[in-house]
Amino acid sequence: MKTSELLDVHPLLFDRVRLSIMAHLSLNKAAVDFNALIEALDLTKGNLSTHMGKLEDQGLIKIEKKFVGKKPHTTYRCTAKGKKEIKKYLSTIESVLRT
Amino acid sequence: MKTSELLDVHPLLFDRVRLSIMAHLSLNKAAVDFNALIEALDLTKGNLSTHMGKLEDQGLIKIEKKFVGKKPHTTYRCTAKGKKEIKKYLSTIESVLRT
Repeated sequence: MKTSELLDVHPLLFDRVRLSIMAHLSLNKAAVDFNALIEALDLTKGNLSTHMGKLEDQGLIKIEKKFVGKKPHTTYRCTAKGKKEIKKYLSTIESVLRT
Repeated sequence: MKTSELLDVHPLLFDRVRLSIMAHLSLNKAAVDFNALIEALDLTKGNLSTHMGKLEDQGLIKIEKKFVGKKPHTTYRCTAKGKKEIKKYLSTIESVLRT
């Protein structure tokens, strides 16, 4: 049994919404904007912002804010560290659960 | 993108300790006893009992209590539903994260 391997997985990824966000960002090469993410994952704005703050604090994503004309525009991108953690998550789950 | 598939995964499995417990039980054909599980997963007694109560409420495991001489003896077993949910968890994670 190697269930202790699960302790190496980044704790933030053990949340369904954050895993959805990371899956979405890690599969998109381009940055994804706020509204597209809200729509794709069916989240509320406040909910998304809270998760994004946590993911950025841990260096898993990068948040970019700029003005397009007079409107603020926020985009998100998965960092190299984020991609590494997603890969580790998948390989660990497979290693632990595959018989 | 199929991240919405994650909503089909049983919510109790999005917890590292409960996933460890379910992985351990689902890979053991025999029932596993309380002390063996504590030792294998490095948990406290209270912590294990709480998780087991939640997993049993949802029908993912079966708890069996009996006396061996004068001592109470508790064992756990993964149910068919539990095995199904673990399989669904693995296949969903793979489907969502594999590119």
